[in-house]
Amino acid sequence: MNRKEFRDLATPDEARAAIDSLSLEGGIERVPLENARGRVLVARLDAELDVPGFDRASLDGYALRARDTFGADEADPARLAVVGEVHAGAKPNVTLEAGQAAEISTGAVMPDGADAMVPVERTDTDGGGDEVLVRTAVAPGDNVMFAGADVAAGERALGPGTTITPRDIGLLSALGIDEVPVRAKPRVGIVSTGDELVRPGDDLESERGEIYDVNSYTIAAGVEDAGGEAVLYPHAGDDQDEMEGVLRTAADECDLVLSSGSTSASAVDVIYRVIEEQGELLLHGVSIKPGKPMLIGRLDDSAYVGLPGYPVSAMMVFRTFVAPAIREAAGRPEPASATVTGRLARQERYEEGRHRLMPVGLVEDGDGETLVYPVDKGSGATTSLADADGVVEVGPETDYLEAGESVTVTLFSPDVRPPTLFGVGEDDPTFSRVLDGLESPRYLSVGSRPGLRRLREGVPDVAVVAGPLDRNVEADEIGRWDREWGLVVWTGNPDEIEGLDDLVDRDLRFVNRTTDSGLRSSLGAAVADVAEKRGTDRHEIVDAIDGFDLGLRAHESPVRKVIAGDADAGLGLRETADRLDLGFVSLGEQPVCALANPDRTEKEGVRELEAALADVSSAQR
Amino acid sequence: MNRKEFRDLATPDEARAAIDSLSLEGGIERVPLENARGRVLVARLDAELDVPGFDRASLDGYALRARDTFGADEADPARLAVVGEVHAGAKPNVTLEAGQAAEISTGAVMPDGADAMVPVERTDTDGGGDEVLVRTAVAPGDNVMFAGADVAAGERALGPGTTITPRDIGLLSALGIDEVPVRAKPRVGIVSTGDELVRPGDDLESERGEIYDVNSYTIAAGVEDAGGEAVLYPHAGDDQDEMEGVLRTAADECDLVLSSGSTSASAVDVIYRVIEEQGELLLHGVSIKPGKPMLIGRLDDSAYVGLPGYPVSAMMVFRTFVAPAIREAAGRPEPASATVTGRLARQERYEEGRHRLMPVGLVEDGDGETLVYPVDKGSGATTSLADADGVVEVGPETDYLEAGESVTVTLFSPDVRPPTLFGVGEDDPTFSRVLDGLESPRYLSVGSRPGLRRLREGVPDVAVVAGPLDRNVEADEIGRWDREWGLVVWTGNPDEIEGLDDLVDRDLRFVNRTTDSGLRSSLGAAVADVAEKRGTDRHEIVDAIDGFDLGLRAHESPVRKVIAGDADAGLGLRETADRLDLGFVSLGEQPVCALANPDRTEKEGVRELEAALADVSSAQR
Repeated sequence: MNRKEFRDLATPDEARAAIDSLSLEGGIERVPLENARGRVLVARLDAELDVPGFDRASLDGYALRARDTFGADEADPARLAVVGEVHAGAKPNVTLEAGQAAEISTGAVMPDGADAMVPVERTDTDGGGDEVLVRTAVAPGDNVMFAGADVAAGERALGPGTTITPRDIGLLSALGIDEVPVRAKPRVGIVSTGDELVRPGDDLESERGEIYDVNSYTIAAGVEDAGGEAVLYPHAGDDQDEMEGVLRTAADECDLVLSSGSTSASAVDVIYRVIEEQGELLLHGVSIKPGKPMLIGRLDDSAYVGLPGYPVSAMMVFRTFVAPAIREAAGRPEPASATVTGRLARQERYEEGRHRLMPVGLVEDGDGETLVYPVDKGSGATTSLADADGVVEVGPETDYLEAGESVTVTLFSPDVRPPTLFGVGEDDPTFSRVLDGLESPRYLSVGSRPGLRRLREGVPDVAVVAGPLDRNVEADEIGRWDREWGLVVWTGNPDEIEGLDDLVDRDLRFVNRTTDSGLRSSLGAAVADVAEKRGTDRHEIVDAIDGFDLGLRAHESPVRKVIAGDADAGLGLRETADRLDLGFVSLGEQPVCALANPDRTEKEGVRELEAALADVSSAQR
Repeated sequence: MNRKEFRDLATPDEARAAIDSLSLEGGIERVPLENARGRVLVARLDAELDVPGFDRASLDGYALRARDTFGADEADPARLAVVGEVHAGAKPNVTLEAGQAAEISTGAVMPDGADAMVPVERTDTDGGGDEVLVRTAVAPGDNVMFAGADVAAGERALGPGTTITPRDIGLLSALGIDEVPVRAKPRVGIVSTGDELVRPGDDLESERGEIYDVNSYTIAAGVEDAGGEAVLYPHAGDDQDEMEGVLRTAADECDLVLSSGSTSASAVDVIYRVIEEQGELLLHGVSIKPGKPMLIGRLDDSAYVGLPGYPVSAMMVFRTFVAPAIREAAGRPEPASATVTGRLARQERYEEGRHRLMPVGLVEDGDGETLVYPVDKGSGATTSLADADGVVEVGPETDYLEAGESVTVTLFSPDVRPPTLFGVGEDDPTFSRVLDGLESPRYLSVGSRPGLRRLREGVPDVAVVAGPLDRNVEADEIGRWDREWGLVVWTGNPDEIEGLDDLVDRDLRFVNRTTDSGLRSSLGAAVADVAEKRGTDRHEIVDAIDGFDLGLRAHESPVRKVIAGDADAGLGLRETADRLDLGFVSLGEQPVCALANPDRTEKEGVRELEAALADVSSAQR
């Protein structure tokens, strides 16, 4: 294989400068007023008419000459002849003389001769409606909105660069403007590459190493968040001609082309060649982690950025370098400052000398202070971002962050709120349902043993632990329930498996869980019982079970092996078997309990959880 | 006329409770993944597969058995036979035995027999590629992402109530989910009422009291901002049957019907009757200013809210009572807290005993502190909101706010930034162009005299003043330019007007500006000159000019009277005449100058303006 290497990495500032040198602007378009919200005006709009266009009654009442009311009060009202009626939307058919008034409704045109009005509440009618008694004095102009008082013809109404709010739409409506010139959204083409990628919704062949295309939709959503218009191009294979065709079409139709989605070196090489030979390559490789393999260049009249293939790297590079350029081109202001300062929950070492973008989660401790913990399942893991709240930037010169150190987190968006509850531990269907009823919990199903370890380290609020585990951690139990565990077998249990002894004595393929799981702890205890009953060593029992050592991390994975026909029995829960219509051989019940960090028992999310778990326990009793 | 009165006003809390008692929820819909951003999940989504679905090479390099590398280092590399090549997206066609390795690319499936991989950088090939020298030891699992390590089958992926971010779209993509169940946006029907309303874009007959419909588009934009879907219904007249028909159609098609747009009492009465007779009226009138005439009820299966007709009242009631209910129904969180604390710029009195929502503008003073000033051109003025940044709430018991008092402003949205520059004063085309080049200025063209008064009160940064005015205010002049003023006349000057004398001596209709305008000051001086020349009193000259006393507020209004044929000459600028292709009789040049508040000359927006004005002055020289 011919592999690209990245020897001379550009600095992040150089990468920013390279992107700034490209033009992503989409020009001008005219949009109807109803679609103008949030768009950016490209030209000044001046008022072409007075608003209102006439002297307008501000209330329901009587139009009159102010002079006729001078001296009037409750005790001595002025008496005027009512000579007409003016409705909103109608031309006045009366001209007032001295001593006369006209009934007028809110918004109606003031009749000629009138220079003020009195609200109906300050009047009484008399003479069968032919006369009105005015119980107050008014000055000329009182209760009248003069022509142009809101906006005057010729006035500068909105300036270029205005991001149009609902309030601005009000002003534009008042001016009768039904179409506005706005900055076109930069069109951003997204070219997904790599033979192993499959569009979500299609079938996946995992054994061929196929994976769903994560970057295309994620980056498209990011483009739209930043004010651009995303255009997804069909999947391009690694063939150079095909790739060049797709890239050129995208370059022709868009202001910016982003390629992304493949981690196969060959696809990267093909793109690299197309840009270098047919376009212009400005930069290749940035000293940032994650995100090193980034390309910046031009193809035909379009800007081009090659994002790395790993989802976390792609999104980090997109957020750091590309999104600001799209926002700039779209005329959007940088989003409101959204940073949070907190204490780092654990020491972080890092010695690679690249600028680092570290995804982190936030959790509020018992005193309401923010703890910041790194979330790192690797650049290839989508949950490295989905389970995080923001990013801590660490300069290339820093190779060590102390636990407790104060760090600044840039939130993924100003709307991000730390979860109300942060739990870790066993994957459990009952607990999952409880989580559904909580406000905005975060739960990482890392297994019972790692859950306990993390609780001991003081980061999560709660750990959920199943089975007979040594809980050497100070914690408050805030909930407990039981679950039935055993062997999940094929529907109807065709092998007539009755218990663990069958796995030991017969030629059956079993699938286990990893030692992280509470199910595995209970299984271990059951194996020890079998060994004792038989008077042998537990190792002999374990060795006799085909598959005992192959533990799968995921809750349902053993069951899915059974469904796929790869195993005869898998370690699991009755609830899972029932849900998937499989057979089940019970090996017992195990307790599951929720343990809270003792400093956090008064935290609102923990109390909410405790209350919800109390309902679960009482339902089981 | 039969006019509704509002005797028993509900409190704001009662109004909130009445709206909460209505159901605005729109149910569930399924949307494709590419449209899921920002939508709210209604059900938990569990992983139905492991991600990745196979043990996956994390780097380019060699798959091997970790045991074969034990003890290897730079000095003493392990030598392995290269027996195959595995690409991303391909099924491995090799099974490794001890002492063997396979070339593997990032993302490819680990071949059977391999339990780790080494990156290519730590290897050398030998034997023409048949052998690889591994210069490091690895442990089992190194550089491999195991099946399910990102997300495990059965794991709770996203909980109900999650607002879908681009990061969540990444997770959903990885799970192969291409459609998600989300909360439907509440459909909100907007019924515009009132015979005087005209849709923007259509022609307006001001003499009939017609005005453009402001509320429909404004409220629609507000509905969409809050996460609803706005549906505009055709204009309904004041006829009861027609109105009932439109309201019923809207109620049938929407979750919430908002009526709005009319201030004519008759339309309100008609709606009131329809809701009271055909539906259920829960509440009528709220003790809030602006916004008193609000209706809350039900019609058929839909919720109903009647907004007041005045734009400011309608928008305030919408923001305060309706938008939160739409957000709630849409599952949107309340927007991030967006409040600003500042000092009130001037005393505010208020004695009506209603809860008050006061639109305010913000300006930063010379020390970087925020000054808050009320913006009140009346409830009928769209600029009362367009020129404001947020709202100060004042309780019904407060009838007095002291200048300098600290107040909390709820911004219209978290994106609102105070303007970089706040100017007031003369309307001037040159200055308008200068404003176009500034970052985000606010300018209120109140005229020269009121501009000076406001500068004296200490609120704006800058006042722009034209003509011979007595400037009794301490200020720094930061720019000065000249403009030619005179009489704007019909194209080609058919009346052969040569100067002011013609207006005095001939039967010509003139249109003046108000005394606020700097043009009026220059005209006053010119009239005094004519009087002196003729040896008469200036009052005689003024009386001889038909229309001298009728001053229009707006910059271009006199000119538009000339265009409309209502006048023979209007006071204006050569630039305006030239732009509108009219004739012009010069009466002289007048200076225009920009005066800065002496405490603000170092403020960035003021310095930016000063620099821009320096370019104007030098261009005139």
